[in-house]
Parts: sequence; C-alpha cells; structure tokens
Amino acid sequence: MSTSRFLSVSLLLLGTVSAEEKLSNFAPAPYRAGPWVLSTRGEIWPKPQIQQSSSSFFSINPDTFQFKLGPELIECEIVQTALPRFFERVFPKFSTNSRTPKQELTNAIDQEYLGGLDHVRVELVGTRANCETHPYFGMIESYNITIGGGDKNVITSESVWGLLKGLESFSQLVYSSSFPSQINETTIQDYPRFPHRGFMVDSSRHFLQMKMLKQTLDILEMNKINVFHWHLVDDQSFPYQSMKFPNLSLLGAYQPYTHTYSPTDVEEIIEFARLRGIRVIPEFDTPGHTQSWELGQPGVLTQCYTDDGHPDGSKGPMDPSNESLFDFLTDLFQELSAVFPDNYVHLGGDEVDTSCWESNPHITEFMAHLNITGEYRKLESYHVERVLGIVDHLAKKSTPIVWEEVFDNGDNISKDTLVHVWKDGWQDTMKKATKAGFRVLLSSPFYLNRIAYGTDWVDMYKVEPLDFDGSANEEALVQGGEACIWGEWVDSVNLVTRAWPRGCAFAERFWSDSSVKDEAKAAPRLQEQECRMLQRGYRVNPIVGPNFCPVDWDSIL
Amino acid sequence: MSTSRFLSVSLLLLGTVSAEEKLSNFAPAPYRAGPWVLSTRGEIWPKPQIQQSSSSFFSINPDTFQFKLGPELIECEIVQTALPRFFERVFPKFSTNSRTPKQELTNAIDQEYLGGLDHVRVELVGTRANCETHPYFGMIESYNITIGGGDKNVITSESVWGLLKGLESFSQLVYSSSFPSQINETTIQDYPRFPHRGFMVDSSRHFLQMKMLKQTLDILEMNKINVFHWHLVDDQSFPYQSMKFPNLSLLGAYQPYTHTYSPTDVEEIIEFARLRGIRVIPEFDTPGHTQSWELGQPGVLTQCYTDDGHPDGSKGPMDPSNESLFDFLTDLFQELSAVFPDNYVHLGGDEVDTSCWESNPHITEFMAHLNITGEYRKLESYHVERVLGIVDHLAKKSTPIVWEEVFDNGDNISKDTLVHVWKDGWQDTMKKATKAGFRVLLSSPFYLNRIAYGTDWVDMYKVEPLDFDGSANEEALVQGGEACIWGEWVDSVNLVTRAWPRGCAFAERFWSDSSVKDEAKAAPRLQEQECRMLQRGYRVNPIVGPNFCPVDWDSIL
Repeated sequence: MSTSRFLSVSLLLLGTVSAEEKLSNFAPAPYRAGPWVLSTRGEIWPKPQIQQSSSSFFSINPDTFQFKLGPELIECEIVQTALPRFFERVFPKFSTNSRTPKQELTNAIDQEYLGGLDHVRVELVGTRANCETHPYFGMIESYNITIGGGDKNVITSESVWGLLKGLESFSQLVYSSSFPSQINETTIQDYPRFPHRGFMVDSSRHFLQMKMLKQTLDILEMNKINVFHWHLVDDQSFPYQSMKFPNLSLLGAYQPYTHTYSPTDVEEIIEFARLRGIRVIPEFDTPGHTQSWELGQPGVLTQCYTDDGHPDGSKGPMDPSNESLFDFLTDLFQELSAVFPDNYVHLGGDEVDTSCWESNPHITEFMAHLNITGEYRKLESYHVERVLGIVDHLAKKSTPIVWEEVFDNGDNISKDTLVHVWKDGWQDTMKKATKAGFRVLLSSPFYLNRIAYGTDWVDMYKVEPLDFDGSANEEALVQGGEACIWGEWVDSVNLVTRAWPRGCAFAERFWSDSSVKDEAKAAPRLQEQECRMLQRGYRVNPIVGPNFCPVDWDSIL
Repeated sequence: MSTSRFLSVSLLLLGTVSAEEKLSNFAPAPYRAGPWVLSTRGEIWPKPQIQQSSSSFFSINPDTFQFKLGPELIECEIVQTALPRFFERVFPKFSTNSRTPKQELTNAIDQEYLGGLDHVRVELVGTRANCETHPYFGMIESYNITIGGGDKNVITSESVWGLLKGLESFSQLVYSSSFPSQINETTIQDYPRFPHRGFMVDSSRHFLQMKMLKQTLDILEMNKINVFHWHLVDDQSFPYQSMKFPNLSLLGAYQPYTHTYSPTDVEEIIEFARLRGIRVIPEFDTPGHTQSWELGQPGVLTQCYTDDGHPDGSKGPMDPSNESLFDFLTDLFQELSAVFPDNYVHLGGDEVDTSCWESNPHITEFMAHLNITGEYRKLESYHVERVLGIVDHLAKKSTPIVWEEVFDNGDNISKDTLVHVWKDGWQDTMKKATKAGFRVLLSSPFYLNRIAYGTDWVDMYKVEPLDFDGSANEEALVQGGEACIWGEWVDSVNLVTRAWPRGCAFAERFWSDSSVKDEAKAAPRLQEQECRMLQRGYRVNPIVGPNFCPVDWDSIL
C-alpha cells in the first residue's frame, strides 16, 4: 500500500515534543569532545535471549582459524555455502583499533588473555535435525554457542537455519582491540520471539537494482530478519517480467530492458535469499494500485466516466465486472506460484478508491446483478474473494497475506489468512483481527521510508507489538511484523542508506525478548552494528549522533 | 553552530499541515502509471535570468565537437583546465533515450532539425576582462550564450568565472532524445542575483572523506554555488592538522592519521575549488564549540567548578581570562591566513553557554577587573572582539564573518563584518542587522541536515530572502546565503545523498530571479537535474516522487 494516506507516528510525536528534546536523546550536556555514544565491542544485534560473557578473551587469527563441521553437515548446502561468507564477516578486511580522544582503549586493561582460538565446531543436533534446503514459516531458528577455549567452542542448532543465526552471532562476537581480533569467553542460548520478521521493498515507484537488493538480503541476514517481502509492482511501473504476459513489463515498466527483473534476476534473488535462510514473498497488489497493469494488459482496469456519462480517459481499480480479468489473474498467479517457492503469497488489497467504480454504468449494472447496489466495499470484497479463490485452487497450496483493509471490509476470508496491519491505530486493528481469530503481522510503526531528523529509530524501538489489550490466545496470533520501505522517495541510491541502521530497531524488537527495550542501553550496541555494516561494505547512515567508524572508506565510497 | 537549539521551519510546518497534503505536492490524483513529474530535457538549473530557446535543434557529436578558445584564453589556466571536465559533462558516458509508459518520446515530433553543431567558441570579452586565477567576493559571474548554428555558437563573459558558469549552462543544454545528443537553438544572458552563494559542511561531528568533499565541490559548480564554507572543527573532533600546533589533531581528532586533513589535503581542496571558481572559507568557531581543542592545547578552555567551589573536571567555553589563549589564537589564525587564500574568514561565535564561566572564581575576578561583573554576554563580547582584533591585524587583511549572536550581543564589530543569520525568526534579525548597516548572509531556512519526509525542498524553494520589511538600502546589504549541512547525522556515506538535489532549491533561490518561485514549474527541471547528477556519478536522492533516470547504475552503486 502506498504511504500517502498514512500519518506516521513519529511525525505526530515531533509535533508534540520539542525538536531539541527529540534530537538530544544521546547528546551529553554540556557537549564534550568525542562521540555522543561509545560503541560496544563484540556485542550482538539483535540481542540474544540468554548470554553470559566474561571479560576474559581469546585471540583469533585468520591464518589458523577454522570452522569444523560435524559429519552430518558435510553434504549440507546451506551450511557449506555459508562458511566463506561468515569467514569474511569474522575477519573483515579492515579491522584496526578504534580510537577517540581519551575515551577508548581503557576498558581492555583488566581483561584476562586466555590464548588463541583456532576453531569452532558447527553441529546439527537433536532428533528433529535434518539438512533442510528451503526456509519456511515456522522453521527452527534457535541455536546455542559456547566459546570456552580448548575443544569447548561450538555452535549447535536443530536446524541449518539456526546454524546460520549462530554463525552470524559468532561473527559479531569477534572484535578488534589490543589484539587484532578477539572474542570473549561466552555462552549463548538464543531463539526468536516471533517467527515472521520481514522487510518489504517497493520496486515499482523506483526500480531497485539487483546489487542493492542483494545488499539488502545480506543486511537482513546480519539482523536475523527472515522474510523478504517484495512489493514488485504498483501504479507507477511493472518491472516484473512475466513469461506468460511479457507485455506487462514491456509496456508497463519505466524502461523494458534496463528497468525490469528478468526470470533469471528473480531466480537469482530467491536463491540468494534461500542460502541466507530468507523467504521471498512476492506481492501483486489488486484491485487498486494497478495503473501500470493496463498498459500491457488493456481492459483489466475500470474505465472511469464523466458526470454526463462519457468515458473520461482515465482508469480506476481493476474491473471485477470483466470476467476475463479473473482468467488473466488465474494464469498470472499460476506462473507466480511456480516462480516463487514460498508457501505464502501477499495479495495486497489496500487503498481501493471506489470513485471510478461509482462513475461506471457497467459496474452499476454488474452490482445490481450481484444484488449489492451502492455497496462498493462489497464489490471490493467480491474482487478479493475471487482472487483468494484463485490462489486457493492453485496446484501449490499457498497461504494468503492481505493488507488490513481486507479484514476491515469483512471479506469472507479463510482463517489461515495473515492480516497485515499497516494503518494508524494499529492496537485496535490487532485486537479486532486476533479476536476474530486471524493471525496478524504488524507494520504500522515500522515505515522506514518515513524519515525524520535525529534519533528517529527510538520511536520504532519502543513499540511493543503485544501492547494491544489482547488475551493470551489473541497475543499468540501475532506472528511477527515487517519493516517497510516504500519507494516514492527511495531508489537504488538510498535504499540501504535510508533503511539502515534504522531497520535494526525493528529487527531487535521482533527477535529479542520484550524486556530488551531500553534505548540508552541499546545505543552503544547499535553504534557497533552501524560500524559493522560499514566494515562489511554497506553504505549505512550515522545513527546515534557524532561518531566515527574505523573502516576502509575507500572501499565503501 | 550546532543544530540542537534550532527548531526547523519545515518541522514546524509538518505539525500544522497534514502529512498527506505535505507529501502529495506532485502526486497526480488518481494515481496514474509512470512518474509523478516528467523530466524536462536540456533545461538549466538554476534557471538563467534571460533565455530564449526554440524547439529547433542541432545534433552534437563527441567525435567532432570542440571548444574553440579565443586567443586571450590560450594561456588561461582556469578555462583550459575546465575544458576536459565540461567535455565529459556535455557527453556523459551513459546517455540513452529515456522512456516511460506512453508519456515520453512524443514532444520531439514537431522539432525542426537544424544539422550538426561542431563547435562552440569560448571568449573573454570586454574592457575589464583578464585571466584571473583566484575566485573572490564580488567576482564577475555573468555570461552570455548563443547557440545559433554555423559560426554563431559562442559563450562569452567578462571573466573566467563567468565562462565557467557559461560552460556549465552549455553542458546542461545538451540532452538526449531521438538523436544521441541534441541542443536547442538558444540565447542566454545570465548573472547571479546574489554574490555570496555558499554551502557549509561540518567535518567535526563526523569526519568527511576527501573523495566526498571533492564530489561536493563538483556538485557546487554544477549548481553555480561559489563558496565552500568549511566548518572544520567543533566540540567533537579537531581534524585540521595544524603545522604550528600538531597536537590539536593528534589528540583532538577521532583518529590522528585516518580522520584528519593534512596540509596537503587542505591544499588539494582549495585547489580543486579554485579551479571551479569556488572560494574556500574556513571556520574556526570560538569561544564555544571548542571542547576538542583542549585535548591538544590544554588550558584554552574554562575550568568549571562545583557549587561548593571545586573544579568539577569538565570544561566550558574558551577562557578569556587566560591571556595566553590569545597568543595561541594569534599564532593559529596567522597560520590559517597563510593556508587559506580567501579574503574572508568565518569566526563562529554562536551558542556560548555561560554557566561554566559563572561557576569559575577566576572568571568572576577577571570580570570584576573589566568592570562587567555578572554581565556574561559582555565577557563573550570581550572574547569575540579580541579575536576580531587578531584577524584585523594579520599581514593578509581578512574580512570576518560571524554567526548572528555576535551582532545580537551588540559586540563592537567593524561595519565590513558579515553577519550570518541562522536562527528562527530570521526576518527580524535580517531587518535589525541591515538597519544597523551590516551586510548579512541567510542560512536559517537552508539547513539541509534537517530532513523531513516527502517533498521538503519546496519549503526551501519558497523562501524569499528579501522578505523582511527592509528598505531598498537595507535589502542591498543582503549578500546571499548559505545552505548548511551539520554533521550530527551526516558522514561520508550520506553527505551527498542527503544534501542533493535538495540543495538545488537553495542554489536556484540565490542565483535566479526572484520571480522564479513556482515549485510546480521547477519540479520537472529539478527532476532533470537529479538525473543529471546521477549521470555524472553522484549518488543523489529521489526528489519529486516516483521516477527513473536512464543512467549507468553500475558505475554509481
């Protein structure tokens, strides 16, 4: 759904507190030399559920260190392909002592050196364990880490997905100080709070280059986000190259060759995500937000009429009175079902402007025939229910996700449908939808496109997704949430820069325990996560005020 | 000055108009396929004072085109070194037909093709003309362009600075459509509305890499901005390597080798700017915003005391009771005067917190001696006047620029001082300062660091700098303005991305005629300027909503 009708929580807050108060969350008073917030070293983002670390440490050296796989993993693709990636994360190219005026380099003094760490074992354990190949809703993601020296260094999980999470945490435990690379004596038991932790990108308002989508997926893995929600098409452009309907992108994209995703491109993104334990859920939003569809598939949209009954040349939402529309959608969703392996599909359903329908005499006639004269939200329901029916009858069974309007309109939808809450007043909607027995996802407070000056991540960080007066059963229906970055002012240049590290606030909220909510405690870890992302080559923004990161800027800029 | 006490105009506005209204400046209703705003082709930003163009056009080809210099320019460094730069701008590496659904490629149909354009003459004309080497306040920047075919293609100016402006405009006249490169029949007479059009960067809150400073200078040239105001040091860090006082950066920078500007670096920036007709004005702000100075030059700051009269370990503003402070500042400003060739220097003087002075018994004693007991603003004046005196007695005479507090405090400052207005309520300050006979610069509405969601450039674009109830004489004292991008949330990653194309609104306001103020007319040109910046390799943000640019993304991302 678009952002234009959505008045963000953070903007409203800015109207009620002074900018000064808002901006100075971490500013010392009086200002002192050096950063506002001192970075931690070797802390994990998002924060693990249970972690004990001592200040005693091992050194760790790229020339001698190795991952030792259990025999059950030797032919396990997900873990094998992950090792080179995580080796680079453990030993980034540029890793020096950081320094800032008279403030750093002091807390290392009392640390006890425990010797070198030359390996960590990586093991799939437990009776449920097997080498899975595709991530899915509800996959096991828990893992344990022990860094104890000698042969007591191990990452374990019941699933390869948990091992990926454990490898990421391990890579974040490693830091640089007086030794080039150090890791503290540590034990971790970790698991996610919610199973669906998503990130939505919009490749229609601006086309997003493959390189930046892949960077995004890497960053999602870094932050233990496991769903890439791809809002592929919208009013402005249709960059998805359909094999069955090539005209959709040939005529509906901004540019048919340089601003489209070929079948190979789409496959590449799905594969890149799969290897990182990230599900790819496509969204093809109907009946609104579809202006660009008409260019390659004339007739799918409703013709709008002037007051005196003539076609006015503009088009409205899809035309549900046109039965061939649903034949077309059946073919298209059949293709999508084969292209996208995930068992969930996002069907949109938001922000339908009915004024064009109201102007159209054929629609009026059709509605009379359906016996819903004048009830345009029921026409919307008719459309959505037809689309849900199409998806329900595909060879590959898919669970639908819909924007909250579909629930609000009282559509007849099956109980397994996920209701995606995005509007203001989300507490009410979460309450109503879960009370009606639906599972929900929350996005309202996590619109990353909506920038504000200063430390705006704190507003997101302080949201408690279960703060909606639900019963225990109702709360249990919250499956997670998604951070969304809509594309009106976001293109390939600022997709990563604008979303991160702000999106980390979302990531920690949906992975870590609800008690992890103090922004002052989070800020030093978030500063480390910012520098870590820069160090790995991602162009992310400053997040907690004046600071610096010891990174190889030449490779980033 | 810092931004923390400054409540931005745009944020205030966001509190009073709905986000929807705010964001939908250019959104068509109902949404249609394609961009919200269609880019112009071959239009100039900032808009020239007088321009006639027909739709008849010439083709222009990199294999045959040449700049033909008048004999007076053969040994003229500024123009000679500019030619390769502008050749690349006339013929960017990636230049294809842009395309968007059923909207582009139509307005070229009725254009008349006038043949090939194989040269443009570049000539220094008039009795005042000479080949100057260093840009300065009040330099001539006017120029004329005729593109008439045959031998009637010429860029003329009375100065090399005007020729640079003319070459930039010429490069922007060239566009791509049905021919690879086209230029319309055109005549231009152009000159700036204000002589001082500046851009301020802050390299203290975050260190800014040389590469991004140079990109910034290139972009300034592109937008006809002629002053690079370098806020080099502040509370957080001291990245300027002083030859006389090396400890200032060795101990006061975030990192003494990777996060500092060596003498060679500074020289490189000044030279890079000079060749582009851009003055470099350094700022060394005192007596506040100086925490980082104390690390390398102990004793320059005031020791703060507890209520019961003991030093509390923290430091306040500079300590004007310490006479050796002024010896040190004399030496430092002597060095700066030799390093920075411009005849203006920015001395800061903003946001002095007097509470530490109030706590210090030596300061109390010193003020009694000065007969200003309890009048802390007069102590501030004492400091500023001493610094002004130092600068006034340097071998190279420099004109001071000061932040508005220095005027507000009623300091005894010479009439040639430029008062830099940055606070809210700028109309009052502009009126008062010009009424008192001072020349002024305006920055209040142009704080580029203060982002807001949506089309926030329009707020800047609609500001009229002379809208302050001044007489003609008072208005004549407005010398221009500066866009400022403070560094609390701006580092090398987002300096360019955040400032541009938003800063273009400022650029047009201070170059073009006051009648050029309709944002709906500006938006299509601004969209072209965005794509042009991308095409030249600068990572700038989307500016007017959904759109696309035909650029070589691989070379940008």
